[in-house]
Amino acid sequence: MIRFNCDYLEGTHPRILQALTETNLVQTCGYGEDEYCEAAREAIQKVCKCDSAQVHFLVGGTQANLTVISSILRPHQGVLCVKEGHINVHETGAIEATGHKVIAIEGTDGKLCAEQIIEQHKLHWEDGSHEHIAQPKLVYISNPTELGTIYTKSELEAIRKACDACNMYLFLDGARLGYGLMSKDNDMTIEDIAKNCDVFYIGGTKVGAMFGEAVVITNPALQEDFRYIIKQKGGMLAKGRLLGIQFLELFKDGLYFEISAHAMKMAEILKEGLKELGYKFYANSPTNQQFVIVPDKKLQELDEKYSYEYQMRYDAEHSVVRFCTSWATKEEHVRQLLEDMK
Amino acid sequence: MIRFNCDYLEGTHPRILQALTETNLVQTCGYGEDEYCEAAREAIQKVCKCDSAQVHFLVGGTQANLTVISSILRPHQGVLCVKEGHINVHETGAIEATGHKVIAIEGTDGKLCAEQIIEQHKLHWEDGSHEHIAQPKLVYISNPTELGTIYTKSELEAIRKACDACNMYLFLDGARLGYGLMSKDNDMTIEDIAKNCDVFYIGGTKVGAMFGEAVVITNPALQEDFRYIIKQKGGMLAKGRLLGIQFLELFKDGLYFEISAHAMKMAEILKEGLKELGYKFYANSPTNQQFVIVPDKKLQELDEKYSYEYQMRYDAEHSVVRFCTSWATKEEHVRQLLEDMK
Amino acid sequence: MIRFNCDYLEGTHPRILQALTETNLVQTCGYGEDEYCEAAREAIQKVCKCDSAQVHFLVGGTQANLTVISSILRPHQGVLCVKEGHINVHETGAIEATGHKVIAIEGTDGKLCAEQIIEQHKLHWEDGSHEHIAQPKLVYISNPTELGTIYTKSELEAIRKACDACNMYLFLDGARLGYGLMSKDNDMTIEDIAKNCDVFYIGGTKVGAMFGEAVVITNPALQEDFRYIIKQKGGMLAKGRLLGIQFLELFKDGLYFEISAHAMKMAEILKEGLKELGYKFYANSPTNQQFVIVPDKKLQELDEKYSYEYQMRYDAEHSVVRFCTSWATKEEHVRQLLEDMK
Amino acid sequence: MIRFNCDYLEGTHPRILQALTETNLVQTCGYGEDEYCEAAREAIQKVCKCDSAQVHFLVGGTQANLTVISSILRPHQGVLCVKEGHINVHETGAIEATGHKVIAIEGTDGKLCAEQIIEQHKLHWEDGSHEHIAQPKLVYISNPTELGTIYTKSELEAIRKACDACNMYLFLDGARLGYGLMSKDNDMTIEDIAKNCDVFYIGGTKVGAMFGEAVVITNPALQEDFRYIIKQKGGMLAKGRLLGIQFLELFKDGLYFEISAHAMKMAEILKEGLKELGYKFYANSPTNQQFVIVPDKKLQELDEKYSYEYQMRYDAEHSVVRFCTSWATKEEHVRQLLEDMK
Repeated sequence: MIRFNCDYLEGTHPRILQALTETNLVQTCGYGEDEYCEAAREAIQKVCKCDSAQVHFLVGGTQANLTVISSILRPHQGVLCVKEGHINVHETGAIEATGHKVIAIEGTDGKLCAEQIIEQHKLHWEDGSHEHIAQPKLVYISNPTELGTIYTKSELEAIRKACDACNMYLFLDGARLGYGLMSKDNDMTIEDIAKNCDVFYIGGTKVGAMFGEAVVITNPALQEDFRYIIKQKGGMLAKGRLLGIQFLELFKDGLYFEISAHAMKMAEILKEGLKELGYKFYANSPTNQQFVIVPDKKLQELDEKYSYEYQMRYDAEHSVVRFCTSWATKEEHVRQLLEDMK
Repeated sequence: MIRFNCDYLEGTHPRILQALTETNLVQTCGYGEDEYCEAAREAIQKVCKCDSAQVHFLVGGTQANLTVISSILRPHQGVLCVKEGHINVHETGAIEATGHKVIAIEGTDGKLCAEQIIEQHKLHWEDGSHEHIAQPKLVYISNPTELGTIYTKSELEAIRKACDACNMYLFLDGARLGYGLMSKDNDMTIEDIAKNCDVFYIGGTKVGAMFGEAVVITNPALQEDFRYIIKQKGGMLAKGRLLGIQFLELFKDGLYFEISAHAMKMAEILKEGLKELGYKFYANSPTNQQFVIVPDKKLQELDEKYSYEYQMRYDAEHSVVRFCTSWATKEEHVRQLLEDMK
Repeated sequence: MIRFNCDYLEGTHPRILQALTETNLVQTCGYGEDEYCEAAREAIQKVCKCDSAQVHFLVGGTQANLTVISSILRPHQGVLCVKEGHINVHETGAIEATGHKVIAIEGTDGKLCAEQIIEQHKLHWEDGSHEHIAQPKLVYISNPTELGTIYTKSELEAIRKACDACNMYLFLDGARLGYGLMSKDNDMTIEDIAKNCDVFYIGGTKVGAMFGEAVVITNPALQEDFRYIIKQKGGMLAKGRLLGIQFLELFKDGLYFEISAHAMKMAEILKEGLKELGYKFYANSPTNQQFVIVPDKKLQELDEKYSYEYQMRYDAEHSVVRFCTSWATKEEHVRQLLEDMK
Repeated sequence: MIRFNCDYLEGTHPRILQALTETNLVQTCGYGEDEYCEAAREAIQKVCKCDSAQVHFLVGGTQANLTVISSILRPHQGVLCVKEGHINVHETGAIEATGHKVIAIEGTDGKLCAEQIIEQHKLHWEDGSHEHIAQPKLVYISNPTELGTIYTKSELEAIRKACDACNMYLFLDGARLGYGLMSKDNDMTIEDIAKNCDVFYIGGTKVGAMFGEAVVITNPALQEDFRYIIKQKGGMLAKGRLLGIQFLELFKDGLYFEISAHAMKMAEILKEGLKELGYKFYANSPTNQQFVIVPDKKLQELDEKYSYEYQMRYDAEHSVVRFCTSWATKEEHVRQLLEDMK
């Protein structure tokens, strides 16, 4: 079985495993206050060109999302996102469980735009009974999005401006950030992201780490007492060093970007190959998730050798499925899949 | 100023005021365990023809909704309703504040249908990653709906069957129940409602009471410890008798239905009159809320003498506004409004 | 049956009933934005000598407590109070249900002192693992306390200073505030309370109103968006005017203080009478709640004619019970009780 | 620096690291549904002699506690534990953040006894106003406790009986379970624990794993939909296999018990050595946490070479500190510490 269903199929990048092995019996203090975490924080501040950013390491994406969002909002405030937003559809109501409404609106290609933020803000505040409605206070975007699409720098800057105009915060979910940044269609740097967001996270789990996400809080107003919230929500890893060691390795010599670039190369081979074979795509993704329309008959054949993620029925004879590449994808596997998709 | 903006503009029906006055200095125990509450409970069980129903008196609608819903659901479960659902758009995220997702779907004329429940259930359980998605466990409908429309008996029965088939509960918000039941288009009794819902509430605040809603729990599986939840959510009135006295009066000699019928008569005069004047309606409401498309110029004129509830812009020169009648509406005021709407 | 079990046994003070009757058919807008509420707010600002205070009217005490506390605290913060604190023992975990720890400590006569606040603050911040512990951010005191005792002005001022020193807020639960202020042992005015607390509430339910509590927020930092929280927690009364009318009457011509003084006079007759009869008290209460140690045999006799609130067993043959007086207590009933207690 | 401050100072046991390394590039599905997790579940069911138990792997202790407790309780229900209980004092209000009161009572040596459960139950239900009080529904105990003490088999069985009699559930926090089971004072097996608890967890983080806790739900009534709650609370690890691989190794050839036994041997050497040196203990712990009363002067000396966990001031010249041994403690380090403690 060759797996393409997601980007967290293997353990971790060998360099990370090596770092964990080398440090295994070193004694450190706990809860992320060790020297590895400290060094990893500095590495991330440096790559983001933002010395004043707070960097916190969490184990997973849902945990990062619910910790960040519940830390920011007062009880009556909600978070705005597109319908496909991970927090809206794939976290079992994790945000609502912290007491907050997810205000989901129709996006375009999985993306939210600046105008929509301004419109939502206006709709809320112009309504005479706005006190009867959850107040939109935070914007949540994913980059890449849940459909594999990415924001352009100018789109992100416009969103930033809209948030400023509306007195709202901006949170970017970067579960697959590396893949977005290394997409050939991308025109942003991680520094641009740090500059335009109040808080974002750099995904490790899906980009070579064994597990872990680095939450970067650039807005000082959102930094106070964040570690309390991590602890309360069950996200404070006793052996926090494990996260520090991993992110330190990922941001040494540009490993994070290098392995992301590999995934993107694999994705391009796959995408171009499928295009040549005449396949159509459900979304035009320039990143490592490819949403392809495949005849059901062909899927039955594939089932013997491959895993993919079933998305939905497309028509009577076709379905939409997702193939992912990752830091670990082997080119021969992609070539083999293309061969079998003929 | 003559007010038509809602149905809770005055204090209370004179008979209720009289009952409160007569009992004012009688001493009773607190928290709804007095003889008035007991008698009111029995009156409601009787009118619902359901002796095993639990009846609880709460002060307001949002309180009733959040208490009922949080009492029923486990943390990962959500409540299904139409987008216009009061819990979705007009309660400041009250349901989410108790930890639960409101799963809002597109309705028809403000109504949900049985097929949609079955479809949502299927969508959830067929998805391989359903554990990552809030589980739909409760259906919330309003009757009349937020658009003034009402369910037919066969629609409600079909919804009941769908809930049974899907192992879901059904909760009916009857904030304006009297107006729905006395609509000339209605084919249901309060007994039908009791028979088909697991829990519902009979609105008092909008139907002649000073304040208060009577929550009726017919499903024994949902009755346990409900009073704890009322207390915890701040809904246990110290002088619970106030609610008992009111509902006792409302369900004596059919007062609830009689005053609802008056409101409906006023609504029909208004609706027919506006139709004759050539006005169009945003929704075809057979109850006491009339959503009318009015030229902005005309609204400016009305503003001097009348209040109405602004809903939204319809086009460049028209808006949608709501006029409500109630138990207290005077026919001369409706006639006067019709005159001025010419 | 003559009832002494609590101070909310009757409906409401006749003057309030009259005010409700006189205004009954007047039309007003809803949700506390009517002229009666406005006037009541001004009356309360005036009596508190604090024009910048926000005044909000809520229906009951638990509702007031949970709305105020959840409005102030961030998720990791807790509220400090004495073990007997109403929020700790008699609200079914209402505060915890909004996500916050109640940090209960041993008080003296139901009271917290300034030193304890400083000590708790120090304990928290000196602990190297304070991020693992709920952060004390708000002090909750009741005046009168749950044992009927009251704070002196200098005690309250010391608590204020301690809160300032510790960067904590102070919230005073005044469910029985009138009785405290009119106690002969009291040396504070309502103005002192407004000056020393960040937020407090003036109890109406137990002091002559039909229902209702007036939350007074003097600290501007705690005023933002409070109405959203009221709505979310189910506390926004549709016919908000009902609360305005009541508080307007209570603060007209000093009615609130006058009827409180009556209750205190009754309490003194009761207390002195019981003392003369040789009864001992569980707490030395200078207010309307008297906690008396009574032989079980005597209680059996009383049961035929009186209600009281059973508190706890004292020894093999005695129990502690509570007798309350109120604005409505008749002197003849107190005399009769004293006669029967012989 | 030689560290004795806790039992999670190193990475992981070399055998676990080897297992992670060997499986590193194997592709598996995610979220704990892979073959390693399946095998680990079976191994744990087998060691617990309970085939019907559900086994779930979570990343950390606070996460396990909040997920289990919020899964079990309805909103008005609370969890009973001793004051020192980890959930009461060291989880930043994590349980309250899920809406539930922690009902903390005075224990003996960090332990709760059956009589106290019965007493608390009686206190609650006998109180006429029990609906105003959070309902005790779940008992939380730790074994070993936060003071290092352990329950005897007969104590646990009595607690089980008390829970049955009171219609309450029993949850055992086994963050350090291995150390308890291998204490020379212990008379229980893991099978006894499985038989007497409704749910418990086997700690990995502190007992040789890199991270991870295995929640074992033996009561079928508590098994439904548990994975939803894990996901909602942010505890569902994408690469769930990492937990499966670790627990599979820990329960292969009795590794878990073997390394626990080593820690106990080290603890005994330390305890006996300190006793011989004349040191007194704050608690008489038969497990790997030793709470020792040490002169402040001596602590200053130790600070140069050792870490320990400061607990509290004992008297003007002494403090209580905690020394922990673990699976990784070297005998030479213990000997060296004893030498320096002379």
